[in-house]
Amino acid sequence: MTSSGRSGPPDLLRALRAKLRRDMPITRALGLRVVGNEGGGLVLSSPLEPNINHKGTAFAGSLNATATLAGWGTIWLLLREHGIRSHVVIQDSTVHYFRPVTGDFTARCRPPSSTAVERLVNAVRRRGRGRIELDVLVADASGDAVRFHGRFVAFVDADNAVGPTHARG
Amino acid sequence: MTSSGRSGPPDLLRALRAKLRRDMPITRALGLRVVGNEGGGLVLSSPLEPNINHKGTAFAGSLNATATLAGWGTIWLLLREHGIRSHVVIQDSTVHYFRPVTGDFTARCRPPSSTAVERLVNAVRRRGRGRIELDVLVADASGDAVRFHGRFVAFVDADNAVGPTHARG
Repeated sequence: MTSSGRSGPPDLLRALRAKLRRDMPITRALGLRVVGNEGGGLVLSSPLEPNINHKGTAFAGSLNATATLAGWGTIWLLLREHGIRSHVVIQDSTVHYFRPVTGDFTARCRPPSSTAVERLVNAVRRRGRGRIELDVLVADASGDAVRFHGRFVAFVDADNAVGPTHARG
Repeated sequence: MTSSGRSGPPDLLRALRAKLRRDMPITRALGLRVVGNEGGGLVLSSPLEPNINHKGTAFAGSLNATATLAGWGTIWLLLREHGIRSHVVIQDSTVHYFRPVTGDFTARCRPPSSTAVERLVNAVRRRGRGRIELDVLVADASGDAVRFHGRFVAFVDADNAVGPTHARG
């Protein structure tokens, strides 16, 4: 089902980086970096400095933004790997900030199960719309600090093609 | 109990603006503005342009960041009004994004009940730490689009004075 090969992960990561830089200017202000894809879960990082708060630790809004993008980017990548060009938006999230983040931080999306991926891909292919829930952990050098759970929706615009032959990066 | 008068709301709003600008650089990237205090609930706004996403609407992370700061700032202001200098951090939040935001947006914190304020103020005074839950609605010109609920903790550092006579802006 996947269209890996020509548009494999490295190409897709490059496309994701370009998309974030081009379409989401706030990612430049965050200092956001696409680190890589670990077994189907996207890893992003942001430096402390531009995201610092009144306590000298990372602003909760920046932690949440980085986690949200790790979830969003994970779905964007996996749909592209399946040759699906779609929009992805977040529907709701719960975030638990259990420790201050005192340095540069990384948001690591837990790779979704193959069942969840299959359900999403089938729903988008059949009905033009599907949902998936993702967990993201944000950590600094001292370990985990923020737990994020988000529900995302992927949908295909009427003017967008769907199918393994239509991946356009 | 309140120390309004000399350090009334306009002075405190100015102090809050200065604090955000000085201590939280990302608020400049967001384009965040402190609009005012409506009956004890802080109102903030952010323009669409620096917060735009791949869909031409507002990035969820920016919506959440503005809402988080509306809650955070509401507590900061009410504690200062009570002469309490403390730190405020978010513990957890749930956010529901029910409609895309297509223009500049405003985050309006629902003023906490007098019971909730009293409980927070008493807890911080007696134990150096207190909790409060807040609701924030984010809206654009077409109406409400995001519902945010957050739990915040206010606490006093050992080296910070507490009490109505110690407000330092």
